[in-house]
Amino acid sequence: MALPNYTIGILQYIPFFYVIWSDDLLSASEVSVVKKTIEDDSVLNSDEKKQLLSWLNKGQPPSDTEFKQWKQTITSSQVKLVESDIYPLTSFSQRLGNLYCEQCDHNEHLKHIEINLGIQPNHYNHLFNVEVVHEKTSNHYASKNLDALLKGAHASEVDSFRSFLNQDIFKWTISRNKEEFRNKVLRQVSLLGEKGYGAMAYPKAYGGTNNMPSYAAIFEHLMFIDGSLAVKFGVQFGLFGGSIQKLGTKKHHDQYLGDTGKTKLLGCFAMTETGHGSNVRGVKTTATYDKETDSIVIHTPGKNDNKEYIGNALHSKIASVFAQLIVDGKNEGVHAILVPLRNEKHELLDGIIVEDNGYKLGLNGVDNGKIWFNQVRVPRENLLDKYGEIKDNGTYFSTIKNPNKRFFTMLGTLVGGRICVAKGALGGAKMALSIAVKHALNRRQFNDSVKIQEDLIMDYPTHQLRLTPAIASAYVYHFTLEEMMSRYSDDSQPDKRKVETQVAGLKAVITWFANSTIQECREACGGKGYLLENRIADLKGDVDIFTTFEGDNNVLLQLAAKGILSDFKAEFNSAGFVSVLKLLSTQLSDKISTLNPIYSNKVDSEHLYNPKFHKHAFNYRTRRLTYTLAMRIRNYIKKGVPSYQAFLKVQTHLLALGKAYSIELSYKIFAEYCATITDEKYRVLMEKLGTLYALHQLHNDSRWYLEQGYFGGTKSKAIRQRVERLSTEFRPHIEVLVDGFGIPEHCLSAPISK
Amino acid sequence: MALPNYTIGILQYIPFFYVIWSDDLLSASEVSVVKKTIEDDSVLNSDEKKQLLSWLNKGQPPSDTEFKQWKQTITSSQVKLVESDIYPLTSFSQRLGNLYCEQCDHNEHLKHIEINLGIQPNHYNHLFNVEVVHEKTSNHYASKNLDALLKGAHASEVDSFRSFLNQDIFKWTISRNKEEFRNKVLRQVSLLGEKGYGAMAYPKAYGGTNNMPSYAAIFEHLMFIDGSLAVKFGVQFGLFGGSIQKLGTKKHHDQYLGDTGKTKLLGCFAMTETGHGSNVRGVKTTATYDKETDSIVIHTPGKNDNKEYIGNALHSKIASVFAQLIVDGKNEGVHAILVPLRNEKHELLDGIIVEDNGYKLGLNGVDNGKIWFNQVRVPRENLLDKYGEIKDNGTYFSTIKNPNKRFFTMLGTLVGGRICVAKGALGGAKMALSIAVKHALNRRQFNDSVKIQEDLIMDYPTHQLRLTPAIASAYVYHFTLEEMMSRYSDDSQPDKRKVETQVAGLKAVITWFANSTIQECREACGGKGYLLENRIADLKGDVDIFTTFEGDNNVLLQLAAKGILSDFKAEFNSAGFVSVLKLLSTQLSDKISTLNPIYSNKVDSEHLYNPKFHKHAFNYRTRRLTYTLAMRIRNYIKKGVPSYQAFLKVQTHLLALGKAYSIELSYKIFAEYCATITDEKYRVLMEKLGTLYALHQLHNDSRWYLEQGYFGGTKSKAIRQRVERLSTEFRPHIEVLVDGFGIPEHCLSAPISK
Repeated sequence: MALPNYTIGILQYIPFFYVIWSDDLLSASEVSVVKKTIEDDSVLNSDEKKQLLSWLNKGQPPSDTEFKQWKQTITSSQVKLVESDIYPLTSFSQRLGNLYCEQCDHNEHLKHIEINLGIQPNHYNHLFNVEVVHEKTSNHYASKNLDALLKGAHASEVDSFRSFLNQDIFKWTISRNKEEFRNKVLRQVSLLGEKGYGAMAYPKAYGGTNNMPSYAAIFEHLMFIDGSLAVKFGVQFGLFGGSIQKLGTKKHHDQYLGDTGKTKLLGCFAMTETGHGSNVRGVKTTATYDKETDSIVIHTPGKNDNKEYIGNALHSKIASVFAQLIVDGKNEGVHAILVPLRNEKHELLDGIIVEDNGYKLGLNGVDNGKIWFNQVRVPRENLLDKYGEIKDNGTYFSTIKNPNKRFFTMLGTLVGGRICVAKGALGGAKMALSIAVKHALNRRQFNDSVKIQEDLIMDYPTHQLRLTPAIASAYVYHFTLEEMMSRYSDDSQPDKRKVETQVAGLKAVITWFANSTIQECREACGGKGYLLENRIADLKGDVDIFTTFEGDNNVLLQLAAKGILSDFKAEFNSAGFVSVLKLLSTQLSDKISTLNPIYSNKVDSEHLYNPKFHKHAFNYRTRRLTYTLAMRIRNYIKKGVPSYQAFLKVQTHLLALGKAYSIELSYKIFAEYCATITDEKYRVLMEKLGTLYALHQLHNDSRWYLEQGYFGGTKSKAIRQRVERLSTEFRPHIEVLVDGFGIPEHCLSAPISK
Repeated sequence: MALPNYTIGILQYIPFFYVIWSDDLLSASEVSVVKKTIEDDSVLNSDEKKQLLSWLNKGQPPSDTEFKQWKQTITSSQVKLVESDIYPLTSFSQRLGNLYCEQCDHNEHLKHIEINLGIQPNHYNHLFNVEVVHEKTSNHYASKNLDALLKGAHASEVDSFRSFLNQDIFKWTISRNKEEFRNKVLRQVSLLGEKGYGAMAYPKAYGGTNNMPSYAAIFEHLMFIDGSLAVKFGVQFGLFGGSIQKLGTKKHHDQYLGDTGKTKLLGCFAMTETGHGSNVRGVKTTATYDKETDSIVIHTPGKNDNKEYIGNALHSKIASVFAQLIVDGKNEGVHAILVPLRNEKHELLDGIIVEDNGYKLGLNGVDNGKIWFNQVRVPRENLLDKYGEIKDNGTYFSTIKNPNKRFFTMLGTLVGGRICVAKGALGGAKMALSIAVKHALNRRQFNDSVKIQEDLIMDYPTHQLRLTPAIASAYVYHFTLEEMMSRYSDDSQPDKRKVETQVAGLKAVITWFANSTIQECREACGGKGYLLENRIADLKGDVDIFTTFEGDNNVLLQLAAKGILSDFKAEFNSAGFVSVLKLLSTQLSDKISTLNPIYSNKVDSEHLYNPKFHKHAFNYRTRRLTYTLAMRIRNYIKKGVPSYQAFLKVQTHLLALGKAYSIELSYKIFAEYCATITDEKYRVLMEKLGTLYALHQLHNDSRWYLEQGYFGGTKSKAIRQRVERLSTEFRPHIEVLVDGFGIPEHCLSAPISK
């Protein structure tokens, strides 16, 4: 065969130049990769090098004529592209060379380009007018290795729990009738209790292993079984049991904790009232100490002061009731008191009214109800008195003198629940992503009207873009929550204000992420996603309320922002205007240096993929928002606007700061985690997921960065393109990535995920 | 009382300056309002004017000392602000003046500022440290007038329909069992049919009024009753009946249309297949003409080629089946054929298998099912043959020679359904907004820890921001769809390609809007929003699928974009690469002139509120996206990338164009509509809603405008602030605005909306 216009040395580079220029893939760093390969290539002579290097000028790209000649060379060769080759483009080039020079050595230099540019067959296979063997998924990475990273220290607990879940009682079925559904979930929770899973976070003396992080890990797995199961489990062992463990003292632990863990005693956590959702400090239920009878009288004063949405309300024997404790005519603030609800025959006790909350958008396996108390009397010992007690002489005593601080100390002990809520929502998102990806790897729609087979929907760029950044985010948030749980459980750090504030923000950001992801997955599965049998519909209904319960997201973000403003010194959960303001006045300075205009238009992939850039951008945003927020509040105050009103006026700014901080925190934690991965192959993969997360987040908030002049228009566009391109690059590995979530096969019961 | 530092003339301006500067409300246009008032004020002497004018310099704002003195003057006066005064700030000023000068005349000039600046008590009441009488809602506008505008020409049909709906059979109840739910909905549909509502869009001869627009108006009202009812109604009368009306000929009309309208004949519309959702042209069901027996044989070739999600599948006697018509061995493309499914006893006929689709995320009152045909024989007359017939001699004939064009002509006749889908989704959003607003006007949470009563959540800026732009959008989309329906129904315009393309984009944009709005409302109602009794949960589940059915939104936006690229000359619904490409080559030019840098940082409210600015910004975006898209495609093609692949590569760009165009279209239609409102008071209100819509949309896409240099950073920030401020300005009227949607009292059954 006669050589077409090119020397054999140049010929082998043609496919690379063809691919590179067809997509305008070149950026400065990419030019340098190709340049280095050419310069180091001992097979080329200097004329060939000169010729090739002349095709690397972004300012003066090869002419259309040149480009068409390349295309012609490739097409007429009839060489096939084999995607499963280790270096498909290099192999292709070599086979192209072989046509004209069978005895030539393979040019081993070429693969340097392929490795360093990260170009993959799905980037360019459409350019080759020859049959290609598509691969649905690549086995370059192993999902079990990813799963091992995610399980981390809980591997043995998680593995045994996964096997345990593989039994009939945990099989997912459609349950439409709430009574039947609730009974089923009750049986599931009871079994988990019997087997010791409920007590995991309790001390060993009460049947536990004192291991909150592992408890959280298995909790997430319950989402793969059913959302109602996860929530009822959390109510019984985490909220009700947790209130006894954290707010009670030894007498309560001895009397109740063991039975609670084993589900012998069913209880509920009665905090929220119809009239008071987010503002717990404002609950109206009273607990009045009566010295005469040495008892506490629990009472619901008005018709809207009942407890509401109380999970387990219909199955419980007892409730942990949050009420205003009044001792000797003085309101000592909100405390928790154990109040029996029902007798052994499961009849309501005198003075107690319970009403079913009825059907909900989701979680219909959870028996939520309203509870009213009419002068219900319980012994003094029922006060959970770790932080505030009524002494034998009938006086109130607490080591925490400040009632505000006391209240928030009590609430703070329950923050573990917020981490679990975020973990549960994340589990739902992982499940939906797994189903949607598996569906997209089977489902075909449309084609080029030439070939018979339609295209997999996973091969559509819009489909990649809607699912891939969400998968990357799920990885980032997984490790973020692992780290937060470990900080929260670290007893050597008693001051948890910072962790609590951080968790408030993360809970909001992650539960919103989960909801939008599940919605995206529903739509990505089309009509199939709408059928209950395919599980996404239930996830959607169940996870929806995660944005509201355990603290409404908008309220939590404002708490987080106030924490940031006060450098985490304000009382957590506090309306806390005063403490924030006090601290504000000392902190009104920021040393953000003038932005470098070159930096703000740097679009090179080396720069855009550099963690230093991401960290700087995230940190800049948090600091800038903090500073401008503080300035705005101070200006209002200086003008005499009352502090409450001043904070109202900057509400949207507070939300923006809370989000920005949470995203920065997630990225930082994830980046630190990545550095600890010893296997380089997987470390690089994880870092790349982190890069996609970072760029996706920066893209989402480009408006703000553009307004600040931190990004120029070119940079903003370049980031958008990089997000699209990274999403495409993950395409061959996307099934491995979702399999890495480790959702047991027996939980992936959706017909479309088979 | 001694006059504090100021002359009486100046004193009366103090409250205004205090309000204006406390919020930095001043922009150039606002300065001019105040300036003009001062200049025209005959009460003031020239020294006073000079003093006052000196306080109007944005570059040199009054000092904090000055400001505090104003505050002191106001506070120490003890004068109360009465929000219900017609001009509250003017009255306040006058009462302040009266303290010092009882015999002075009221300064009537002042109200000029209040009227022209649009400042309202909720902007500034927090600045007055005196008791204010809050008003929950203003009666400045009347909801019935708004409702009248929305009803437009359909007032009498809508009014009588609303009364008709007020009967027990249409009372909303929780229905969990699908069989019971479906039977209930069937009874409702039957009653509507009997009363003639189903046939409204049919010709008079078949029981109708030939009035598609009124049909669409009553259709939207069914969403207020129940989503399942609306959808089943649409399937029976719109899709099934519509296929007979639009694709059939007189013989079909005579035989079927009257009975269909009266619900004597229940039918379904069997188009979608399990393997083919969006790609209708690829359906696999065959309809083979057998000349021997003069009949057509309907057959499902493979196991995934069954019809799926077919509404009414379990109740129907007959189906309008879309299948590949094969005559004399030649595939003539997709045609609709009437195929009886069941006999009088409601038993399935030979060769037909129907399977229940089971439970879904929503719409469980609709009996969706799968249908398989095994060599089912129907007479030749059953072919709906308006656009393609089988002649007596057994040959195929159509006046539309091009099979592509023929197919899309058939589909095009069904576009009315897409308008109804968008209207239905919009109805759901209106309902959710009404419930959320009414809840927010009752629900109180948190306060300033000073006063006893907590604040209405509607008074929180974040709450205003999450609901108000959505309300404005609902008004804009309402009139957009009214106009599209009227264009679609205009028989004097036979070429509907443009309308069809526009409807494709609008359906996507509006159904997405509806879903995100309903979600926002759910969260805005907290836990209450999660309870089924409060209706939002059902709306969420029901409307969710509107993004998918009658064309997946992502697919529709791409169709819309291709239409725009080809200036609406391409075949609608066509994959149509070739026709688009042909037209592209002639249109690659755009005369967008260089942007004026002053314009890109103009932040004056006069400019930002000017419809010319909105129109220019929307138009600029559409044109720019069209031009760059065309350039990108051409460049790919020039490089030899096959057209199908080139379109894949620009998929996200296509989506952006489809959205941009639809938003521009909505705004234009709404602006044109506003100009026709004769009552100035309501015209101004509507225009203001349009302004909020426009700024909200521009804000949503600020990133893009910033990237293009069309907005500078300052302008982008100013737009964001204007959206927040407009949302606050609508606060006193927000209940009237949702009442204006005209949802009948008997439909607002949610306990939280009482």
